[in-house]
Amino acid sequence: MIELNRYIEHTVLKQGITESLIRDNFELCTGYGLPVFVIPPAMVKFASSLRFDKAVSICTVIGFPLGYNTHKTKMYEISDAIEKGADHIDLVINNSIIKDAAWDRFDAEMAEYRKACSGKILKIIVETSIITRNELDRIAQTLVNNGIDYIKTSTGMVGDGAKLDDIKFLKEYYGNKIKIKASGGIKTKEQVLEFIEAGADKIGTSSAKQILEN
Amino acid sequence: MIELNRYIEHTVLKQGITESLIRDNFELCTGYGLPVFVIPPAMVKFASSLRFDKAVSICTVIGFPLGYNTHKTKMYEISDAIEKGADHIDLVINNSIIKDAAWDRFDAEMAEYRKACSGKILKIIVETSIITRNELDRIAQTLVNNGIDYIKTSTGMVGDGAKLDDIKFLKEYYGNKIKIKASGGIKTKEQVLEFIEAGADKIGTSSAKQILEN
Repeated sequence: MIELNRYIEHTVLKQGITESLIRDNFELCTGYGLPVFVIPPAMVKFASSLRFDKAVSICTVIGFPLGYNTHKTKMYEISDAIEKGADHIDLVINNSIIKDAAWDRFDAEMAEYRKACSGKILKIIVETSIITRNELDRIAQTLVNNGIDYIKTSTGMVGDGAKLDDIKFLKEYYGNKIKIKASGGIKTKEQVLEFIEAGADKIGTSSAKQILEN
Repeated sequence: MIELNRYIEHTVLKQGITESLIRDNFELCTGYGLPVFVIPPAMVKFASSLRFDKAVSICTVIGFPLGYNTHKTKMYEISDAIEKGADHIDLVINNSIIKDAAWDRFDAEMAEYRKACSGKILKIIVETSIITRNELDRIAQTLVNNGIDYIKTSTGMVGDGAKLDDIKFLKEYYGNKIKIKASGGIKTKEQVLEFIEAGADKIGTSSAKQILEN
């Protein structure tokens, strides 16, 4: 039997969440053995102050959720997040660059993000619902070439979230070169099992409690 | 008869928009006499390069749309946007600060944003659909005290957008001290006229063309 909790990155990314809610959810991570807690940049410093040990990694989001902040601002946001205690960085790509097919620019940005996140886990969020399969393929090549740790399917804020079909595609062609985080709309135990079966290494969800208690 | 175009801030904030689409919409602003063009931070430099005169002001969004980037990152994003050519700054507040009632922190941040946007038009976006009337009142006081140019009702990305009732409230109590930008879900000429009637000084919408041609 698989330890489902080890797959889940517990995600609390609604706006307007209070420090008290961050505290409760941190305790939920500890209680259920959830290894990663995904929170807004503005909550990283507070969450870091709650950590008595490193059993729970703190993950935050960069350029979230639309990805169209400037490259310079994203670079700044990364260094600020790491300084405040982030262990994982989930960064949204700028889809205008993809739609303009400005691949040199895309490749250069990814190389800089990898460097800025040296020693940290870096996941690149691609929002699969608004890109083509060819674009996804081209993006995945760049991520692999730059040693990005994970490709992540969705912010969960825009359009459809993770699709099994995208996970299967990524697993088949890139599965031995980059890890896959499925996220966006995953709310039940059945979905979690399906996505793991399809090839996901991690599951991003805000529904950990209901998933693990059913 | 009022010149409706002078009220409209033409908004193109979808992710994945191309440079060619920015160019087309810039020309639409020139053609219809729309005074303000609202675009993603990553498009400000490109849009600035298209300007032969200053008839159209370039506006961009900071901490958009969820507002929970750190204060330091927002400050950086402001200076980066101004350096790249932004004339207007529309900044989303961090609603966690509001829900934690950390008013000293809120007041201090607003003072710093005002200072960072010295000489530029600064609009603070409050996302009225997730705050109470009391919170809106307290926020408006701070904005007035700090000489913020506009209070803006919504990002248009989260929950309900502008409500006539909020505009009327702001107009009655703060109308002579701060300008009001209504935004979020405004798509028709009838709505534009209603919001102006209720007290809005500017209307943020992505539907300028259909509004002005009907």
